[in-house]
Amino acid sequence: MNEWKAGLEGIVAARTALSEIDGVRGRLSVRGYPMAELAPAATFEETFHLLWRGELPTAAECVCLGNDLSRHRSLPSLTVGVLRQSAQQKLSPIEALRLGIDTLGISDDDDESALRLIAATPAIVAAYWRLMQGHDIVESPADLGIAAGFLFMLRGGPPSETAVRCLETYLNTMSDHGLNASTFTARVILSTRSDLKSAIVGALDALKGPVHGGAPQPALEMLQRIGTPGNARQHLQDILNRGERIMGFGHREYRVRDPRAQILSDAAARLSAADGGHPLYLLALEVEEIATRLLDQAKPGRDLKTNAEFYTAALLHQLGIEPELFTSVFAISRMAGWLAHCREQRQVDRIFRPTSEYVGPGHREWTPVDER
Amino acid sequence: MNEWKAGLEGIVAARTALSEIDGVRGRLSVRGYPMAELAPAATFEETFHLLWRGELPTAAECVCLGNDLSRHRSLPSLTVGVLRQSAQQKLSPIEALRLGIDTLGISDDDDESALRLIAATPAIVAAYWRLMQGHDIVESPADLGIAAGFLFMLRGGPPSETAVRCLETYLNTMSDHGLNASTFTARVILSTRSDLKSAIVGALDALKGPVHGGAPQPALEMLQRIGTPGNARQHLQDILNRGERIMGFGHREYRVRDPRAQILSDAAARLSAADGGHPLYLLALEVEEIATRLLDQAKPGRDLKTNAEFYTAALLHQLGIEPELFTSVFAISRMAGWLAHCREQRQVDRIFRPTSEYVGPGHREWTPVDER
Repeated sequence: MNEWKAGLEGIVAARTALSEIDGVRGRLSVRGYPMAELAPAATFEETFHLLWRGELPTAAECVCLGNDLSRHRSLPSLTVGVLRQSAQQKLSPIEALRLGIDTLGISDDDDESALRLIAATPAIVAAYWRLMQGHDIVESPADLGIAAGFLFMLRGGPPSETAVRCLETYLNTMSDHGLNASTFTARVILSTRSDLKSAIVGALDALKGPVHGGAPQPALEMLQRIGTPGNARQHLQDILNRGERIMGFGHREYRVRDPRAQILSDAAARLSAADGGHPLYLLALEVEEIATRLLDQAKPGRDLKTNAEFYTAALLHQLGIEPELFTSVFAISRMAGWLAHCREQRQVDRIFRPTSEYVGPGHREWTPVDER
Repeated sequence: MNEWKAGLEGIVAARTALSEIDGVRGRLSVRGYPMAELAPAATFEETFHLLWRGELPTAAECVCLGNDLSRHRSLPSLTVGVLRQSAQQKLSPIEALRLGIDTLGISDDDDESALRLIAATPAIVAAYWRLMQGHDIVESPADLGIAAGFLFMLRGGPPSETAVRCLETYLNTMSDHGLNASTFTARVILSTRSDLKSAIVGALDALKGPVHGGAPQPALEMLQRIGTPGNARQHLQDILNRGERIMGFGHREYRVRDPRAQILSDAAARLSAADGGHPLYLLALEVEEIATRLLDQAKPGRDLKTNAEFYTAALLHQLGIEPELFTSVFAISRMAGWLAHCREQRQVDRIFRPTSEYVGPGHREWTPVDER
């Protein structure tokens, strides 16, 4: 019997041929491709294909996949009805996404289910957002890909090419990252030979936890409270003096800067440049520099550097995506990784059943209620 | 870095003061009380109280808990609407249960959520079953407890005292059992500081997997195919000759007979006696004896004895519960354990993030689609 490690830290719970995290050198790759090369260049469909099928698609496979995904995008009436009722009850977007996915029909075929889930997720997120705002649901033209289609459905009109490219960069960057809690949840559920949709709903249950998928929103709120670069030093120092965390810094896996921060920062820079310099991006740059220095002084040796959440906040904000949607947009991306991990888990086909260590009271004798 | 163990077998993933499994001596206890004493004597409310609050309730606490649960039993209109639509689409009962629970309002308060979930689950299972049969939903009289109320809602009329007692014995017996896959899923989800309802939906996602919650149904089907005691030896020998599994035998945790088998067998015997001898119970006794002997010969040293699923099948069948409902009735029971594990996990407050071992391709260079 091993000793107990809370959170299973350092315990190998799965073998994977998907993402490889080098926390010491700050590198991340997917099936051997460095994320820094893949994310800014690939469409999200290509990344999904790479994760799900193992290889980047050929031109013919791209066409085929695009058609399949476009066919799987439209939502059944049960889903739309539940989203309408959820909007009346003011459910949070991530709650509504989970419920919406739960109402999709399921197939016994994993390939079919995966296409359905990756295609319908952006449609649910966008539809629910519009219903929350009191707008009608807008469908995407069939020829738009996942990222462009999502922005179209969200805004009710065509997005710019830069916006699409930057959203794709985000979706690729966040698509897989080892055995995080939601991915692990999906694998545990699938290990009971449950279906793909059940595993994905469970992953969403975990993602919505504030210490998992909920972190970029507080990072944006912090940037907005700081307001201008001139306030940054004082505000950040006050956070540290109060013994609180600076949002968007530090990651359990990385001893150096999270490699995703650079990719997302580059994308945010492109978007900002297209905008003639976006004040939030410029503020984020300044805050990163000051916060890194203050953290080095306040917590020497802890190596707290910017994580993926910090520039996620800046990037999604520049794309006009509201903070309430951040976790749902994260789900659109991570769906690709969840699905691919489920596929790997199918091959393992061994139920997760770790051990618990009993630390409760010793033998007690039953007494009926009138003798208690 | 540890070596990889598929399914985390033998790895301690949590400390618990709930159930203690002694797989060598075949003993199971809950917070120190032997299950063999607790299960036939306690109401399911008492077991829930013991698991959730740590102690058996006093008489006054019993009254208070009964009132609270009765107040939390009725289903909101969104839930009823979704169940009606699900029945039209012929969703399986466990799918509908998951969806029904997902539509319940959630509270930030764990105590409130736990009462809601333990009380509403039997109401959803019974309501959906009646809708599937084309009947109206029946509400339970306020003064009935969980087990009696469930049978009332299912059948549309009052159950016998023996039926209630035997169902309670089942619900108590199956209420908690270490870190099985669904309980583990609930803990992983809760570790992200997600809410109780999300953790429970995830647990249901895992429970519905055929190698977890789905096993008593095949055990009943096997008994029904055997039909009469005279056919047992030949039928069981044929199963072994084909290299297939005899359903309802063997458990990863027990080297001896699963202690729950005796408790459930005793309850089935009481029900059978009240019935003047139920043919399925008598058949089950015969099949257990012959199968144990055949398995000893065919797989010496494997110690494959009856597990909980074997007499679950006989007991629930005698209660007039159809096999399609077995997993949902299991969920009514295990809900108590899931909730109590969630409460323990709240105290740990450490996210599950095990490690994965990368076994994929080495460095590859990105190539654009027209060069592939």
